[in-house]
Amino acid sequence: MDRSAALAKLPDRICFLGLGLIGGSIALGLRAAGSRARLVAWTPSLAGPEAALHAGAIDEVAVVLEAAISDAGLVVLAGPPLDVVGLMGPATAPWAALAPDAVVTDVASTKAVVMAAAAEAGVPFVGGHPMAGRETSGFGAATADLFVDRPWVIVEGATSPAGGVDLVEALAVSLGALPVRMAADTHDEAVAAISHLPMVAAAALVDAVVGDPAIWGAAAPLAASGWRDMTRLARGDADMGAGILATNREAVANQLRGYRTAIDAWIRALESGEAPDALRSRLAAARAAIDAAPKQ
Amino acid sequence: MDRSAALAKLPDRICFLGLGLIGGSIALGLRAAGSRARLVAWTPSLAGPEAALHAGAIDEVAVVLEAAISDAGLVVLAGPPLDVVGLMGPATAPWAALAPDAVVTDVASTKAVVMAAAAEAGVPFVGGHPMAGRETSGFGAATADLFVDRPWVIVEGATSPAGGVDLVEALAVSLGALPVRMAADTHDEAVAAISHLPMVAAAALVDAVVGDPAIWGAAAPLAASGWRDMTRLARGDADMGAGILATNREAVANQLRGYRTAIDAWIRALESGEAPDALRSRLAAARAAIDAAPKQ
Repeated sequence: MDRSAALAKLPDRICFLGLGLIGGSIALGLRAAGSRARLVAWTPSLAGPEAALHAGAIDEVAVVLEAAISDAGLVVLAGPPLDVVGLMGPATAPWAALAPDAVVTDVASTKAVVMAAAAEAGVPFVGGHPMAGRETSGFGAATADLFVDRPWVIVEGATSPAGGVDLVEALAVSLGALPVRMAADTHDEAVAAISHLPMVAAAALVDAVVGDPAIWGAAAPLAASGWRDMTRLARGDADMGAGILATNREAVANQLRGYRTAIDAWIRALESGEAPDALRSRLAAARAAIDAAPKQ
Repeated sequence: MDRSAALAKLPDRICFLGLGLIGGSIALGLRAAGSRARLVAWTPSLAGPEAALHAGAIDEVAVVLEAAISDAGLVVLAGPPLDVVGLMGPATAPWAALAPDAVVTDVASTKAVVMAAAAEAGVPFVGGHPMAGRETSGFGAATADLFVDRPWVIVEGATSPAGGVDLVEALAVSLGALPVRMAADTHDEAVAAISHLPMVAAAALVDAVVGDPAIWGAAAPLAASGWRDMTRLARGDADMGAGILATNREAVANQLRGYRTAIDAWIRALESGEAPDALRSRLAAARAAIDAAPKQ
């Protein structure tokens, strides 16, 4: 399926619930690809949709949630994980207004909790996770090419409608992304390892070093690019991070336990006076593992 | 002291023992600053000095160590920590050939072990550590502006000659660096925190994640910029890293124990089912600490 074939599969009306970096980049990407779909967006504050309308990225700001989704062929939940789960709850769910053949998808960073909430709510849902984050957030940071050549995980669930996976795959391809079908648990364990563990590792590094004024006073003026790289993930959006951890806590805790085991091995190596050759072998093994890994 | 005043303080002949990224960048930086000092370099393989001579960065390749240093006013030990310590040993030490008023300095990443070796060998030594690393290494990666606006730690020791600290400070200033006088132990604890701990944390992340094939197979294709940033330090030179850890093992082990405590707190928070608000507070505290830290 090439991009133009994928674009042709998209419905005439696409509705965004949430419109920050990711939702905004989807809208801009569809525009740039030449989509003629009518793009509608709602958020609680309407700030993102209004900025997007002003920028020509969408056609319509929806004030009422139910009206927004009522005649959309594709609804994209483009908020963080806890917001997506919240939208599945009985108190706020607008899903009775959904058109009979509509498909709902999301862009949240964790999938098992979202898939379970969608199944329980009976929403015709296909999970999605475009792997294209940034430190920045909000519609103002959105770009049309954010997803180009990036993986877009697609998860089929108990209430995925016929053709739903194909439609979400078409959305990904139309934005230049690489669709990857995956089970929710496999996805959550994978992102726990390469995304959520690094986020916590960065925060813990700040906790340990900046939290020690006796060291930090002398250390801060000497910090260079290595320190900046290793703490960049600790500068991310705390709301987003909390939602990710709260909806993937078992997998992240499991990864953290494995990380602690690796840290302990290093502590023992240093405390036991391991020779430079043995220390070099440890570092060389890590470097070889990274070099042997598939290139991102 | 401005750069031209600093340049005027440098001796007529400067000798480099070791000429990779750092030594080469010092030589190029002196040339770019207009220094007329005769620059001489020796390494065991002579590869770096020959490349530097070809590039016009130095004036002379020294084949015999003793001859190289015999009439230098400043000798720069520009190898990694273990090489610097090795040069202080009785078996290889060329120091009897040193001119009476010469000053020896180094660029190694740890200072206490080097200072102790220099004191024991009776070398007229002032420790140095320009904080300007790169992932790349070798003379081919050297640049004239590597040290501009970067801190250059200067450590006075038991065998520092009169005027030695001033001379090394002049070297730093003539290259555009910012001299920072510091005690060896303070330096070693500081760089353990902001440089050596991050290096081990990156290696441990690779050990834990890439070392788990059940996870890595699905995770590798999804890895993005966060993973790359957090593992970049694990791609560094293993020889250099091993020398750093072997000469700073106590301070690094101490930092790693503090880091493990911070990791453990995160594990407990996730395992105990801490609410999203509390998880957000943890992430927000790390972000606030980073934001409040002096900018590098």
